[in-house]
Amino acid sequence: MAVITLTTDFGSADGYVGEVKGVLATRAPGAALIDVAHEVAPGDVRGAAWILRRIWTRFPAGTIHLAIVDPGVGSDRRAIVARAADRWFVGPDNGLITLVDRAHPVREARRIRPESGERPLSDTFHGRDVFAPAAAHLAAGMSPDEIGPSVEPSRLERLDIPQPERDGPLLRGHVLHVDRFGNLITTVPNDWLPEAAEAEIAGVRIPGVSASYDAVEPGHLLLTRGSGGTLEISVRDGRASERLGVHRDAEIVVRPAGPES
Amino acid sequence: MAVITLTTDFGSADGYVGEVKGVLATRAPGAALIDVAHEVAPGDVRGAAWILRRIWTRFPAGTIHLAIVDPGVGSDRRAIVARAADRWFVGPDNGLITLVDRAHPVREARRIRPESGERPLSDTFHGRDVFAPAAAHLAAGMSPDEIGPSVEPSRLERLDIPQPERDGPLLRGHVLHVDRFGNLITTVPNDWLPEAAEAEIAGVRIPGVSASYDAVEPGHLLLTRGSGGTLEISVRDGRASERLGVHRDAEIVVRPAGPES
Amino acid sequence: MAVITLTTDFGSADGYVGEVKGVLATRAPGAALIDVAHEVAPGDVRGAAWILRRIWTRFPAGTIHLAIVDPGVGSDRRAIVARAADRWFVGPDNGLITLVDRAHPVREARRIRPESGERPLSDTFHGRDVFAPAAAHLAAGMSPDEIGPSVEPSRLERLDIPQPERDGPLLRGHVLHVDRFGNLITTVPNDWLPEAAEAEIAGVRIPGVSASYDAVEPGHLLLTRGSGGTLEISVRDGRASERLGVHRDAEIVVRPAGPES
Repeated sequence: MAVITLTTDFGSADGYVGEVKGVLATRAPGAALIDVAHEVAPGDVRGAAWILRRIWTRFPAGTIHLAIVDPGVGSDRRAIVARAADRWFVGPDNGLITLVDRAHPVREARRIRPESGERPLSDTFHGRDVFAPAAAHLAAGMSPDEIGPSVEPSRLERLDIPQPERDGPLLRGHVLHVDRFGNLITTVPNDWLPEAAEAEIAGVRIPGVSASYDAVEPGHLLLTRGSGGTLEISVRDGRASERLGVHRDAEIVVRPAGPES
Repeated sequence: MAVITLTTDFGSADGYVGEVKGVLATRAPGAALIDVAHEVAPGDVRGAAWILRRIWTRFPAGTIHLAIVDPGVGSDRRAIVARAADRWFVGPDNGLITLVDRAHPVREARRIRPESGERPLSDTFHGRDVFAPAAAHLAAGMSPDEIGPSVEPSRLERLDIPQPERDGPLLRGHVLHVDRFGNLITTVPNDWLPEAAEAEIAGVRIPGVSASYDAVEPGHLLLTRGSGGTLEISVRDGRASERLGVHRDAEIVVRPAGPES
Repeated sequence: MAVITLTTDFGSADGYVGEVKGVLATRAPGAALIDVAHEVAPGDVRGAAWILRRIWTRFPAGTIHLAIVDPGVGSDRRAIVARAADRWFVGPDNGLITLVDRAHPVREARRIRPESGERPLSDTFHGRDVFAPAAAHLAAGMSPDEIGPSVEPSRLERLDIPQPERDGPLLRGHVLHVDRFGNLITTVPNDWLPEAAEAEIAGVRIPGVSASYDAVEPGHLLLTRGSGGTLEISVRDGRASERLGVHRDAEIVVRPAGPES
C-alpha cells in the first residue's frame, strides 16, 4: 500500500486540505494518506523544509512526501517530483527540498507535466490540480519519466540557510527553527559538541548540556542534544524563544566549558 | 473500501473528534476516515457549508461526507442523510448542504432514526451518537430506507446566502468566505468575468485579474480567478481581509475595465 | 487491522507528529493511524487524561491508544504500556491513565525496554524513539511480556483529581475541563442529579437542567447532562468559561431546585 504524507500551510479551518485529499482518494484509492502538519505559517517555505528534513527517512522507502507551501503558485516556478534516499518529494521547486538534500542528496527530479492534472487547471491551487495528481501517479506506480522531463538535481532551487562553522574551539551556528514549545533548534550538530560545553545566545550564557528538562529548575534555561541531531535551547516548563527574545536566524556560539564555569 | 470524510467545529484540543472516530472505527471497521477540517469556527454552519461545496465531488462517488457543526443539537432540528451527485451527506439539517445543493441538487434525503445510534443517547453530542452511527451504516452498505423515513429534498433547511447578480455590464456579489490566508472568496463566478475587469470593494478599486500572486508587488492587492470557481481578492504575501477591513458578506462590484483605467 | 490512536501536545506546525507516524508506518505497516488530538496544551497531562477517558472504549477492543504528553521525558519517569478494558495505553507513566483507570481499572502494565526502540535513542523525544516503537510492537502482535517487565498497576502514577462528593442533598464537584466551546465539564455525575436541580458556581446560580442549548435565550447560561456522563455548564452561542470567569478546578455545588426557584 502506497504511503502519501501531507505537509501544508492550509490550516484546518478551510476546505483546501480536503480538496487535495479528495483528488488523492479518487486517483490513488487505497493509498494511506498521512497528515504531517497543516499549520505551517502561510508561505513559510523554510519551516516546511525543516519538517521534511525531520520526517524524511522515518517513513518507509517508497513514501511520497507531498508538500505544499507555494506562495509562487501561478508564476514560472517549476512543479517537480524529486527522489532522495528512495523517498519522493512532490511540490513546488522553491527550496522545500533544501534540508533534505543536504542530508540525502536528490538523485532524480522531474518537472511535472500539468496536462495530466485536474481540469480545469486553476491559477492558484496547484496543490490540488498539479501536485496531488502527480503524487497519485507515483502512488499508482507510474514511472518518473511518465511524470515529466528530467531536471538536473543541481539546478533545483535551494534556500540560503546558513551552515554551522568551526572556529578553533568555537562552534558558530544559528537558530534554524522555533518549535511549538518555544524550543530553539539550532544548526550546531550534536556530534560536534565537546564533552563539556556552554553556549551563548542573545548575550546570555547557558552552561552545560542536560539529558532531560528536569535537570534544571522550572523556568530555567538549558541546552539539550536535540532529537533532530542538533543542539537545542529550552526552558523547563516554559518557552526559550520568549525568555531570550530571539527568533529564527539568531546566532549562537558554543565553546568548551572551562573549569571555572 | 468506504471513504468517510470529517468536517467539524470540534477543534483539536478536546477528545470529541476522537469519540466520533471511535464510533466509526467500531461500527465501520476498515472504512477510510479522512480529516477535512476541524477548526471551523464554533457553530459556523456557513463556513462548513462552503467547505462541503469545495470538497464534495473531489472525492469519489459513494463517499460519505460527515459534517458536524450543530449548534441546534437537542432541539427539534432534523438529523439527516442526503444524497447529491452520488455522494452522501450525514449531519444536522441546518443548512450545511446549502451550497452543495445549489451546484448538485439533493436527490434523496432521509431522517435518521435515532434508535440505531449510540446508547445512551446524549442530549448534546449527536455527532457521536446519531451522525457517526448513520455514516457507519451507509459505509457498511445499509440502504437509505433502513436509515429512516424519506424527507422531501425541497423541505431541507437552506441558508440565506446571497446569489451574484448581473446588472447590465456590472456584476454584483458578496464575500462568501475569508480563508486562512486572508483571501476574500466572492460569489462572482469566474466565467462571468469580462476579458478585462476591475473590482470595487470597501471603496477600493482593484484593476485587472492576475494569473499569479507575483503579478503584483508584495503587499499589493490583486484579483484572481479563484480555484473554487469564483473571483477572489488577495494581497501578495499579505491578508486582503485586513488590508480592506472587510468581512464575510461585504459587497463587491465588478465592471469591465475601461481603456483609461 | 490494528488501530493506533494518537493524542499529543505536538501541535500541527512542526514535524513531530510526522516523525511519530513515520516510525509507526515503518514498523507497523497497514495499521490504521487515527488522529485524536494534537493541540493539547504543552505539557497538559491532565487535559490529555480527560481526552483518553472520553475516547477509551469508543474504539474497538484491541485498540492501541498512543498518548504523548511528556514533560518529564529523559527523567526517570517510566515508559509504559498498560491494558484496561481490553484496550492498550502506550506513553509515559505520569498520570495520563488516571481517569481511564477510575472507570476501567488497569489490569496489566509493562515497563518498555528502550533497547527495542529507535536508534540513536534521543534524550527528549521518547514519543518517537520509545513509545511509537512499543505501539508498533503491540500492533504487530508482540506479547506484552516481550515489551518489558511487569509493573504492578497500583504503582502507576495517578493525578490528584478531586472526586465529586455527596453532602446530604448537596452535590459538590469541580470543573474537570474547559473545552473548545467554553463549556465547563464538571465531575458531578449525571446520574446523581435530582429530577429538578440547580447549580451554583462562582457565585452565580443556574436553575434547571436543559436538554438542548436552545432551551435558553442566546447568551444565557444553562446546565446540561453532559455527553461524557457528567454535568456541564454552557452559554448558548457563547462561552461559559468567559461568562463566569472560571477555570479548571473551580468548585460547583448542585442542589435540588426548590419550588420557589
